[in-house]
Amino acid sequence: MTRSQTINSLKTCPIPDFDFDVITLGHGSGGALTHQLLESGVFDLLDNDFLKTRHDGAVLDWQGQMAFTTDSFVVSPIFFPGGNIGDLAVNGTINDLLMCGAIPRYLSLGFIIEESLRMDEFWQVVFSIKQACENAGVQVVTGDTKVVEKGKADKLFINTTGIGSIHPKARIHPDRVSPGDAIIVSGDIAVHGLTIMSLREGLTFETSLKSDTRSLNLEVSGMLDQFGEEIHLLRDATRGGVATVLNEIAKHISLGIDIYEDNLPVPSEVAGACEMLGLDPLYVANEGVFCAFVNADIQEECIRYLRSLPGCEHAGIIGFVGSDHPEKVILNSAIGGRRVVHMLPGDQLPRIC
Amino acid sequence: MTRSQTINSLKTCPIPDFDFDVITLGHGSGGALTHQLLESGVFDLLDNDFLKTRHDGAVLDWQGQMAFTTDSFVVSPIFFPGGNIGDLAVNGTINDLLMCGAIPRYLSLGFIIEESLRMDEFWQVVFSIKQACENAGVQVVTGDTKVVEKGKADKLFINTTGIGSIHPKARIHPDRVSPGDAIIVSGDIAVHGLTIMSLREGLTFETSLKSDTRSLNLEVSGMLDQFGEEIHLLRDATRGGVATVLNEIAKHISLGIDIYEDNLPVPSEVAGACEMLGLDPLYVANEGVFCAFVNADIQEECIRYLRSLPGCEHAGIIGFVGSDHPEKVILNSAIGGRRVVHMLPGDQLPRIC
Repeated sequence: MTRSQTINSLKTCPIPDFDFDVITLGHGSGGALTHQLLESGVFDLLDNDFLKTRHDGAVLDWQGQMAFTTDSFVVSPIFFPGGNIGDLAVNGTINDLLMCGAIPRYLSLGFIIEESLRMDEFWQVVFSIKQACENAGVQVVTGDTKVVEKGKADKLFINTTGIGSIHPKARIHPDRVSPGDAIIVSGDIAVHGLTIMSLREGLTFETSLKSDTRSLNLEVSGMLDQFGEEIHLLRDATRGGVATVLNEIAKHISLGIDIYEDNLPVPSEVAGACEMLGLDPLYVANEGVFCAFVNADIQEECIRYLRSLPGCEHAGIIGFVGSDHPEKVILNSAIGGRRVVHMLPGDQLPRIC
Repeated sequence: MTRSQTINSLKTCPIPDFDFDVITLGHGSGGALTHQLLESGVFDLLDNDFLKTRHDGAVLDWQGQMAFTTDSFVVSPIFFPGGNIGDLAVNGTINDLLMCGAIPRYLSLGFIIEESLRMDEFWQVVFSIKQACENAGVQVVTGDTKVVEKGKADKLFINTTGIGSIHPKARIHPDRVSPGDAIIVSGDIAVHGLTIMSLREGLTFETSLKSDTRSLNLEVSGMLDQFGEEIHLLRDATRGGVATVLNEIAKHISLGIDIYEDNLPVPSEVAGACEMLGLDPLYVANEGVFCAFVNADIQEECIRYLRSLPGCEHAGIIGFVGSDHPEKVILNSAIGGRRVVHMLPGDQLPRIC
């Protein structure tokens, strides 16, 4: 994103009348400045009955099974085409809840801010958090703000921890995966990681790539509504990409996985940028793509449903679970070769989320 | 803490056979190195049925009212007399749950690690997390690990987010505070903040100060068991100290608070160190001290109970709620003067927790 694009996107949200242009250490003191920062707009923006008590925790009524998940976000840069660290953090934790078969409900929000972060940047992030929460029907019900000295963090880190109620029809568990299960990928892969890397490498002028950060509420709730326990396992293909998710599952269930290169939804622009940067799209992070292990009987119907949703037009069956080569993921190439897809050995793409 | 003291304390926990001496960016990749880091000891140490699924979230059964709270910890240095960032993070979030009138149950654990953190230091922190969890009867059920480049964080930041079930007899709410309520402080104040500041200023050789980090489980559950709804409000006096907590409450309930200098439990060593560093103990952070607003009828009995517990020997009634001077906290000095105690205006003590 160019600087003028960043500034344009900042114009989309009204900036409160802060007394400071930048965040200071005092804003993390827990004292008057922390209160001023939160009371001058943040609480109003995120407003709900739980935050109104201004307590250090929320008290919620609950009954039934609950999913509970946490993620810290350290993406660099904090603004990128298609989103920023704020909506990324909200969507990421919402998607983790969905992958548990849950309906996302409540979030906590923890900021670690580097002293001197610009107030308008902070505000833009908070605004995106609000919008992402509204889109997904969740509420931020408790939070925390810390500030560290300049040079002791990198602009802004965010932790989002989420609670969701398990969908009444969900029976998601690795143990439910068995030989014959079809493996679905919900849409074009490698877009988020490529967007961030292109931005860092200064390639944005050559591509129109945009992060796929979004919540997968509609996709997952629709699949569970229609297919219930025929959906055996869900995993979002974030850090480490599709290859890492499949390897984790193969190891955990001691079964083999075969995938087919021809079936992988890799947009040509992504394939081109991956080649330029020397990356394998199978390992590149996604923020709006998941893998589903489903009963093969419903695979076609499931794909039809997903393809009817925006962002999932290229959903497809990329492979199957088998009992050969346990714990291994095998890629069947377009020209008939076969190779083992290993887990990402080191760190291909640091700070992608 | 001197270097030899640090090394001695490291000897108290067995260090797994890590392949690396320091954390690398790859340990935050979500790929093979992340798995290796977690599987080489962390999962075994924190072992429970929820972590066994190796999913990105835990699924919990639940019924009734729940407290939900989050805190990020950025204390510097990460090791200090009396604890480290690990037990501080666990105890801090446990105490926030207790302050909601909850019985702490489950925690999430999010690490943001600076590349090159020593593996033995990381391990010592994880070990302390385990011990603090065991002491308080809580389980870490989900987590996340991110690594950022050297110079982009400061060794280690930890987010802990907690869930607890509301104590059946608890009716904790700011609206329940009314004129005449007694204000109890549970023990010696200003110790944690002073310990950290003394350490940073190189004064440790002159003091035997030790952080008061610990969970307040026994104190709070015992008070709720015995006095139930006579306990109107609980707040731990962390960042910003007792003065900030009292100011927050006074503003929220639009009532006045009077406290008495003579009744404040300030150990002489703390008073001396505060003078040396130019700090007011009322504003210095605590990690094992809370303020309770209780029905005056039970104040004596409540103090007797607290004083029977280790760490609370100096619990006392420090003041009362009144309808004069609404929203203001007034300190009645030892020599008969009165002054307003304001909220901490800036940041007296950065990165104390």
